[in-house]
Amino acid sequence: MSATKIPGEFFLINRLQAKLIQPKEKESIIGIGDDCAVLQGTQGNYLLVTTDMLIEDVHFSRLYSSFQQIGQKALIVNISDIAAMGGKPKFAFISLALPPSLSLEDFDELSQGITEIAEKYSISIVGGDTNAGPDYLNSSSKDEPLKGQYSGLVINITLLGEIQPKNIITRRSACQGDLIILTGHVGDSAAGLDLLNFIKNSSANKSTVDFKKNIYQQAIKRHQVPIIRLAESQIISQNHLATAMIDVSDGVAGDLRHICQQSEVGAVLWCEHIPISKAVQDIARLFHKPPLSYGLSGGEDYELLFTCPPDRIDEAKSLIKQGTGTPMSIIGEITQKEKGVRLIDFQGHSILAPESGFDHFQSDNA
Amino acid sequence: MSATKIPGEFFLINRLQAKLIQPKEKESIIGIGDDCAVLQGTQGNYLLVTTDMLIEDVHFSRLYSSFQQIGQKALIVNISDIAAMGGKPKFAFISLALPPSLSLEDFDELSQGITEIAEKYSISIVGGDTNAGPDYLNSSSKDEPLKGQYSGLVINITLLGEIQPKNIITRRSACQGDLIILTGHVGDSAAGLDLLNFIKNSSANKSTVDFKKNIYQQAIKRHQVPIIRLAESQIISQNHLATAMIDVSDGVAGDLRHICQQSEVGAVLWCEHIPISKAVQDIARLFHKPPLSYGLSGGEDYELLFTCPPDRIDEAKSLIKQGTGTPMSIIGEITQKEKGVRLIDFQGHSILAPESGFDHFQSDNA
Repeated sequence: MSATKIPGEFFLINRLQAKLIQPKEKESIIGIGDDCAVLQGTQGNYLLVTTDMLIEDVHFSRLYSSFQQIGQKALIVNISDIAAMGGKPKFAFISLALPPSLSLEDFDELSQGITEIAEKYSISIVGGDTNAGPDYLNSSSKDEPLKGQYSGLVINITLLGEIQPKNIITRRSACQGDLIILTGHVGDSAAGLDLLNFIKNSSANKSTVDFKKNIYQQAIKRHQVPIIRLAESQIISQNHLATAMIDVSDGVAGDLRHICQQSEVGAVLWCEHIPISKAVQDIARLFHKPPLSYGLSGGEDYELLFTCPPDRIDEAKSLIKQGTGTPMSIIGEITQKEKGVRLIDFQGHSILAPESGFDHFQSDNA
Repeated sequence: MSATKIPGEFFLINRLQAKLIQPKEKESIIGIGDDCAVLQGTQGNYLLVTTDMLIEDVHFSRLYSSFQQIGQKALIVNISDIAAMGGKPKFAFISLALPPSLSLEDFDELSQGITEIAEKYSISIVGGDTNAGPDYLNSSSKDEPLKGQYSGLVINITLLGEIQPKNIITRRSACQGDLIILTGHVGDSAAGLDLLNFIKNSSANKSTVDFKKNIYQQAIKRHQVPIIRLAESQIISQNHLATAMIDVSDGVAGDLRHICQQSEVGAVLWCEHIPISKAVQDIARLFHKPPLSYGLSGGEDYELLFTCPPDRIDEAKSLIKQGTGTPMSIIGEITQKEKGVRLIDFQGHSILAPESGFDHFQSDNA
């Protein structure tokens, strides 16, 4: 039998999901397909559960981040999933595969990063599983096929949160006419990662670029330790300002598509309104890329993307600004399903948003 | 700064735990230190949460188990943690790191194994995170230190279960005078693993041992797909037959020690009463090991070890036998803390149980 190469993450999730028995009774309110699973919780609340696995050299690199930053990020990406539904994080479970190359000092740094974030957001770490990873270097049997000398750090965090049923925000209820809102600005994390890659590869070349520049460091920091929009999320959910919400982890276009699929609607994104920082513009110029490509398809921004009825926009803006100081941008509008997900480019042309990848996308902003 | 090598799993758990903020309020009933974390659940029940990470070439090998068996085992070890507290498993979250060496057929086998067990025990899989592992083989940058050509499959499962508060069984309430009970028999999994190792290493040597022998295959099967004592656990918890319980994953002596530490008691184990199968005796003879070493320190048996007041023993035996057909053995007695954990060997001598490792332990049963 010839082996088939695995086609991709979303394919696998669908394939696994197709095999699953569906939850009986009313116990699981939402299963796979939103930021968190939603189950019955205590005292009339819903229980939110999310799980994320971070794998060395896939999701992070010890060349680019300290172990403290890696620990912080591992918990933050889970908090962001709870925030995306309007919930409050409460209990965390940490599983670790620790490779032989990790020292005790590294481990302490890693756990310091995790516990710092847990403390800041009042999350109790109540369980976990700590394991030594395979030690191929010191293995006595060298005769096995495919064995190398390295195994990486793997961090899996499961985070439990809660929310009152009346406040929950799913991906399912965006309506035609709703405006599409984004907190903060996007593209910084992907631009920071490009910089980190460039710095690594050009260190010997005596590059003339001043990487210590404050504006560059901001983008790099944003990649290393993402922002957390938990306070913004609480305001949005408690004031019922959103009809649908998601955290931006795969780029604005891709994540908006998730909302459209689940809500059975279309959308139009106004490119000139997508908030791009000065840092992203500078880095884009350095690498001859359109700045918008970072925001549309960059990933790991962890800003909140939500849909809001037009008559609630002013209230949303002022409540979030007052409560957190975070700016909000109106970047598009929900349309009918048949129209698909479209972009209005800088020339005012309406084009169909590609399924994935926006690197070819051209703008006047470059 | 010189790097310190990591000393061991229990050390790390303690070190991480020391850094943690303790849960406030009455929301976390039990945190780290039992088979599951215990939180407030729905309708007056407790929520049980356990998480286990299985790492290729640490916890399993694709040379020894099919991917279907690996999937089955990954869920079973979590079910066993829920069973160890008397609970019922309900919701599972599956995170996967899939190495490039895994084909689509392997993935399908793996998920078939997981879903088979989920279906059999009415567990809903409601979330997860599917990731491609690092592809060092096809990596374009070969210049990084410590990189090899291989990364393994990692499976992390978080399992949620529930139990009525009056039925929960922790590790904390064993009392002096309680008898120590074990379901089934122990050592088979470790003996099966020894056989698998031997078969792999001796295949070229034209060994005269008939590995196809039914009795050997039983032990191998037990290593590949552990038994699940969920029905037994339900009977024990619903009839309040146990003062403390644990599932045997690290060998009888080690797991009894966990009960003794948490309950602040001592214990005496009667070696000649520890149930060892014919398979383990045969395999022990083959490898010139004392059979009891497999049961005392072998690991991965997933039998239930519990403490029971003497006046409930007859009831416990008959209820479990009637309900499940599973035999039970009385293997020792809880003593006062000061006596520590002791073994009565086959000559009737009382010796202090070593902290870990029983391979040097001698018996007349060999």
